[in-house]
Amino acid sequence: MSADRFDLALWSAAHLRAVEEALCAWVHADAPAGLGAAMRYAVLDGGKRLRPLLVAAASEAVGGNAQAALRAACATELIHAYSLVHDDMPCMDNDILRRGKPTVHVAFGEAQALLAGDALQALAFELLTPDDVSVPASIQAKLCRLLAVAAGQRGMAGGQAIDLASVGQQLTQDQLRHMHCLKTGALLQGSVMMGAACGAANPQTLAALNDFGAALGLAFQVVDDILDVTSDAVTLGKTAGKDAANDKPTYVSLMGLEGAQTHAKDLLVDALSALDRSGLQTTATQALRALAYMVVSRNN
Amino acid sequence: MSADRFDLALWSAAHLRAVEEALCAWVHADAPAGLGAAMRYAVLDGGKRLRPLLVAAASEAVGGNAQAALRAACATELIHAYSLVHDDMPCMDNDILRRGKPTVHVAFGEAQALLAGDALQALAFELLTPDDVSVPASIQAKLCRLLAVAAGQRGMAGGQAIDLASVGQQLTQDQLRHMHCLKTGALLQGSVMMGAACGAANPQTLAALNDFGAALGLAFQVVDDILDVTSDAVTLGKTAGKDAANDKPTYVSLMGLEGAQTHAKDLLVDALSALDRSGLQTTATQALRALAYMVVSRNN
Repeated sequence: MSADRFDLALWSAAHLRAVEEALCAWVHADAPAGLGAAMRYAVLDGGKRLRPLLVAAASEAVGGNAQAALRAACATELIHAYSLVHDDMPCMDNDILRRGKPTVHVAFGEAQALLAGDALQALAFELLTPDDVSVPASIQAKLCRLLAVAAGQRGMAGGQAIDLASVGQQLTQDQLRHMHCLKTGALLQGSVMMGAACGAANPQTLAALNDFGAALGLAFQVVDDILDVTSDAVTLGKTAGKDAANDKPTYVSLMGLEGAQTHAKDLLVDALSALDRSGLQTTATQALRALAYMVVSRNN
Repeated sequence: MSADRFDLALWSAAHLRAVEEALCAWVHADAPAGLGAAMRYAVLDGGKRLRPLLVAAASEAVGGNAQAALRAACATELIHAYSLVHDDMPCMDNDILRRGKPTVHVAFGEAQALLAGDALQALAFELLTPDDVSVPASIQAKLCRLLAVAAGQRGMAGGQAIDLASVGQQLTQDQLRHMHCLKTGALLQGSVMMGAACGAANPQTLAALNDFGAALGLAFQVVDDILDVTSDAVTLGKTAGKDAANDKPTYVSLMGLEGAQTHAKDLLVDALSALDRSGLQTTATQALRALAYMVVSRNN
């Protein structure tokens, strides 16, 4: 498989540099009354940037508009960052540690955290709609649509509502899958599809990339559940063992540790098979393949 | 002035019916785990719908695409509704009464209120980007850009950050104006400009409509400050006397009641003068004119 010969670290480094520079430039410190500082604290914190990398990889696979892909990459990260800020608040998960640092509401207060999250969501859509000719309006509109659906009630926000309602509940595997497809999967899958929207892919390719994104999105959450029990806070950069402590249903509580590990590998196979039927050349999809491996083998 | 012969109530009734029907259809009850119910509670509550009416009036003034205008009208209302939900939360204004009903976090809990606000913001951008030919992509992109800027750190969210930081502070009139131009003015002005973006207005017209929106937006807030001291909770549908109780700077605390009333009238004159230099026919702008009168003479 080509992923063996593809240097993901090298490929990622170039893309991460561009994304970090763009985020640094686009998330202004000068937003009023400390809001900019809170927004930057939430975003410029050394996250894995998986979503931006998925956008970049999918855009490259279809020969997408590079400027559109960079904006889309940053927009997905802003949505991800805002969701973490709000998710950590006392009325939600009440977490004080995120990526090894105090969470935004601990550092800036709850009201500023709420506003910073809100402003980051708006900024995501602002980044997608530059008032110049760098990104065709047809791509701008598609990117906004994909991001709005991935972030909203049929995506991330809806998944979080199910998550809230599921504490202490016994979920079936189908219910757990549904929750995670929305809560975490939708934005990961949306990132892949936003990358694809930067180019001109045919329906067969789009359908395959959509399946790839769905499998990868779910695999990410299964691995998250595994790491919550096998890892420690230092490696994870956030509170470990939290799911069990909060009596949250997880793939590990449902399938056992080994069952969850097998399930993650099955989902990796699904993701790679989807790429095989995309009609794209293997060299075009090597970054996507390598990212899928990375998602399943990561340790934080 | 033509506003005397224009029947705003009749004009509004037709537009409000369309907006209410569209909001009812587009804010689905079936969002998961009670999220849809919280979203609908926040939106379908008999608000004044001033922002949708401004979109409709501005779109009519420039002969805009009616389907785009209806979507834009609903999107502005979703942003407004989400901002009220978050603004009422305990970590912000901690208000329990809104339009005569328990606020969303009182009725549904804080976590659900947070998520409902987040999902409403995403839904606003989803409404602006239908996946069909009803609204040209160029208009979709412009509408998203205008709404994102109006809602974000250079608009509403930024204004709220200043507001938070201003409690107990002595502000100059310039500082107060700046705060309100962002906090309340940006979305009202944005509504006017979104309406204008549904058609093809020349730069002179756009600049005049922008000035109209700025004056109207500020007038709205000055009147809000006046009503906070002259009205009661039943008429207002929310807690009265709140600003003074929270030691918030207002136009009344800065200029006195009479001074604020004079300022509101001056802003009305500014708004109407802007329309006079728009290059639009008087009949085309009569709804905008009547809305400006209404904003300054309203009692709730």
